Amino acid sequence: MSLVIHKYGGSSVGDAGMIQNVARRIAEVRKQGTGVVAVVSAMGDSTDDLLELAHSVSDQPHPRELDLLLSTGELVSCTLLTMALADLGQEAVSLTGSQAGIHTDTSHGRARIYSVDTARIQKELQEGRIVVVAGFQGITESEDITTLGRGGSDTTAVALAAALEADRCEVYTDVDGIYTADPRIVPEARKLSEISYDEMLELANYGAKMHPRSIELGAVYNVPIYVASSFNDTPGTLIHGESDRGDMEHRIKATGIAITRNVAKITVRSVPDRPGVAAALFEPLAQGGISVDTIVQNTSEDRTTDISFTVSGDDLKAALAKVEELTSVIGFGTLISEPGLAAVSVVGSGMQHTPGYASRMFRVLADGSVNIDMITTSEIRISCIISEDQAEDAVRLLHRGFQLDESDAG
Amino acid sequence: MSLVIHKYGGSSVGDAGMIQNVARRIAEVRKQGTGVVAVVSAMGDSTDDLLELAHSVSDQPHPRELDLLLSTGELVSCTLLTMALADLGQEAVSLTGSQAGIHTDTSHGRARIYSVDTARIQKELQEGRIVVVAGFQGITESEDITTLGRGGSDTTAVALAAALEADRCEVYTDVDGIYTADPRIVPEARKLSEISYDEMLELANYGAKMHPRSIELGAVYNVPIYVASSFNDTPGTLIHGESDRGDMEHRIKATGIAITRNVAKITVRSVPDRPGVAAALFEPLAQGGISVDTIVQNTSEDRTTDISFTVSGDDLKAALAKVEELTSVIGFGTLISEPGLAAVSVVGSGMQHTPGYASRMFRVLADGSVNIDMITTSEIRISCIISEDQAEDAVRLLHRGFQLDESDAG
Repeated sequence: MSLVIHKYGGSSVGDAGMIQNVARRIAEVRKQGTGVVAVVSAMGDSTDDLLELAHSVSDQPHPRELDLLLSTGELVSCTLLTMALADLGQEAVSLTGSQAGIHTDTSHGRARIYSVDTARIQKELQEGRIVVVAGFQGITESEDITTLGRGGSDTTAVALAAALEADRCEVYTDVDGIYTADPRIVPEARKLSEISYDEMLELANYGAKMHPRSIELGAVYNVPIYVASSFNDTPGTLIHGESDRGDMEHRIKATGIAITRNVAKITVRSVPDRPGVAAALFEPLAQGGISVDTIVQNTSEDRTTDISFTVSGDDLKAALAKVEELTSVIGFGTLISEPGLAAVSVVGSGMQHTPGYASRMFRVLADGSVNIDMITTSEIRISCIISEDQAEDAVRLLHRGFQLDESDAG
Repeated sequence: MSLVIHKYGGSSVGDAGMIQNVARRIAEVRKQGTGVVAVVSAMGDSTDDLLELAHSVSDQPHPRELDLLLSTGELVSCTLLTMALADLGQEAVSLTGSQAGIHTDTSHGRARIYSVDTARIQKELQEGRIVVVAGFQGITESEDITTLGRGGSDTTAVALAAALEADRCEVYTDVDGIYTADPRIVPEARKLSEISYDEMLELANYGAKMHPRSIELGAVYNVPIYVASSFNDTPGTLIHGESDRGDMEHRIKATGIAITRNVAKITVRSVPDRPGVAAALFEPLAQGGISVDTIVQNTSEDRTTDISFTVSGDDLKAALAKVEELTSVIGFGTLISEPGLAAVSVVGSGMQHTPGYASRMFRVLADGSVNIDMITTSEIRISCIISEDQAEDAVRLLHRGFQLDESDAG
């Protein structure tokens, strides 16, 4: 029997009617003889409601307790979906992360899956049942409940697809696929019928709605991931291993434009230019759970160097505090912080080895009078840090500049 | 180290402030060197909210799914309480019913505990932690979540007290103990400083706020149960094995008056008077999950008999349907149903062997012009089924008639 994993996000199971709608969609697939494992997120804003409840009791909720609390949101949605399936005459069973065999490490709030014990799911599937799994959660070796972090239900779904060797993982959400840019910013953005894992990973890291971890996992286990709307039957986007657009060495087209808002830059000036300095700077940030994104190091005069890096605007205060400890204790140089930035990125396979991409990006931005603050590149992405005020304009300019609105361009 | 079990009902953990208050109470006890395992119910009306949510999705929610859904209510309150304890500097850990080792049968919605595996709780206690357990829930052998039925958190608490050999089980609630009658009906009702399991069991079965199963369990394992308010430090009531009020053979005082509202009576007339008839009548009711309370059988003329029994008014329709099947198929007699009744009971140890109790009860009711519909007695209780309209008056009359308002009576 073929097997698909369905994943439904919070906006697709926001109320009773939407849950019944999702149940009908799943029942249709099952009736055609396909096995279905459905992974659900918590209903609508219920995770935020639980967070608010926790903060009403405690300023700093204990991470282990917070995880058990948050895990209840997905238990609610998955039991309701299972009830709705039963009402449609479908044999169905809900499973908690623990019952579904999702084993994780002990990092509460951002646990990583280390294995999936599929015995229970396999048994239920063999008995003909639809299996509904609470997303976003797992269990440690000592049987404590963990959560995988925001968007973790995507990761649950892909991990199950990999462990169960499902035919594919279908992620249903409130958008109907992956676009060349955010359609709210660029009205002429086009939906992609397919995209490679690598490209999607860059898009996801730089603003698209999928959880980057789930894409990584999909790439490692070669799980085809199909992203589509839970509200209609419009064809979505297939994320898979091979990009077919153009032959391997002659790809000259960008795939999409991504945007990350609320970026802040910290520059440490006049850092002694000797080994170990970067480690001394970034280790405390990592230990503090602060994600550092772009890092740029320039040489300055007098055997010192300037290091600039970006963090989320939400982490700026904490990051500055960590770095200030160092500047005062170890004798680093001066600190400059700059909030209110954004990253705009052009993503496309093999871009770095194709001359002209970067210069074209800089030209487009220059023509639009957008000043570039920092530049970083990866194998398949060029990102510029610019003022957040100009970010949406920049996305529109780049979308046009890279002819992404022309469906047969390239 | 001495060990106590604390149990807090939903009305004691209704909001963040109340949860913080409960945390302070527990922390005080822990600071005095006593080990504490706290069992909590779901916050306020949250169980009803979850039920409503289930019914918004499904007319007849699947029992297994409903149990997993309802179990989240206690997970929320127990994690919040644990966070509040952590904020007070107390090492604390929350455990789900599963983590707490509460093993039950598979009767979803009304599961019975068959064993408690205390390994995890013992480990946490040994490490000096306060353990907060989600009440009302357990896990089956196949790792499915069950709930113990309404009021099941009391049962969880007493079961843990028994399994952990705790010094006592303290049940904190919104009343400050067990009274000789409901103080809302009888203003001069007195609080009992102690009461035996048997008497409490009758009071609980006939209207007092404790869950009868928890009292039964307490009696079997000889767990002293202390019932008091979570809002103040007024002394409560100790439920234990020996009643000290009067010597064993000369007890001539009732303990309390209980009331059960919403009682309905069904009478099956002209039932053939032969073996197996009662079984044929009550087996289908039991299979339908309908609790039958008082049963009375009278002989009538012509080798037939009349059987009357009472059920909860909520079950009347279902019970009539079950019995009608029989009257038509097996040829029973006619059916009469009477809703709008109540049971008033006088409870006291050894009452049945003390002449005069029953006649005194009947006299008091007669003097108050209360008509008695049915009468049943147990070792320590006399109950009369009367019109619900007269029930509160009857409780007041009986409270006065048995001199329960005189603290040194008896």
